[in-house]
Amino acid sequence: MSARSNEPYYAVIFTSRRTEGDQGYADTARRMEELAADQPGFLGLESTRGEDGLGITVSYWRSLEELQAWKQVAEHRIAQELGRDRWYERYHVRVARVEYEYDFTRGQTS
Amino acid sequence: MSARSNEPYYAVIFTSRRTEGDQGYADTARRMEELAADQPGFLGLESTRGEDGLGITVSYWRSLEELQAWKQVAEHRIAQELGRDRWYERYHVRVARVEYEYDFTRGQTS
Repeated sequence: MSARSNEPYYAVIFTSRRTEGDQGYADTARRMEELAADQPGFLGLESTRGEDGLGITVSYWRSLEELQAWKQVAEHRIAQELGRDRWYERYHVRVARVEYEYDFTRGQTS
Repeated sequence: MSARSNEPYYAVIFTSRRTEGDQGYADTARRMEELAADQPGFLGLESTRGEDGLGITVSYWRSLEELQAWKQVAEHRIAQELGRDRWYERYHVRVARVEYEYDFTRGQTS
């Protein structure tokens, strides 16, 4: 998500530790990113996992209602179930309202 | 941050791309984590950077006032300046109020 929004919006902060092995995780993660991008109210997603195994994914949504609707999408519900069954040792989800923001890009004057 | 808070609190979502080379970055990053942990209102920090170079750091704070005070700490201001001068191609900071949260730990019934 590169554009700065003037409307309030929400960030879903998903931190996780994976179990050992892929077990179909990478394919489903890719599919869920595609599917999320098609949902009403989806604004963007940033995701990374470090060498120590900690993963942080932040997705951005126009409203609480729209991000909650995404949680209920059937294919996503199956993925969440597989996540608890196979893929994650633990995860933590925080839903937060973006209050303000700023950014920096090298070579641009702000 | 493992404990779930009943009080409202804030997340600072810092996403970044680094420049090439360390240039003193790792030492300062470590020092800033230590220094942040000593600030009033600091609740926790999670940080990771993937192989593609995208870094996400989320720090948690009790109040907007306390997280803004951290931004003004002299040693942190110097680090921010070095960040723009040397370490980051770009970064984006979003300050967000945590509305609700939930978590999962393998082997625990919720």
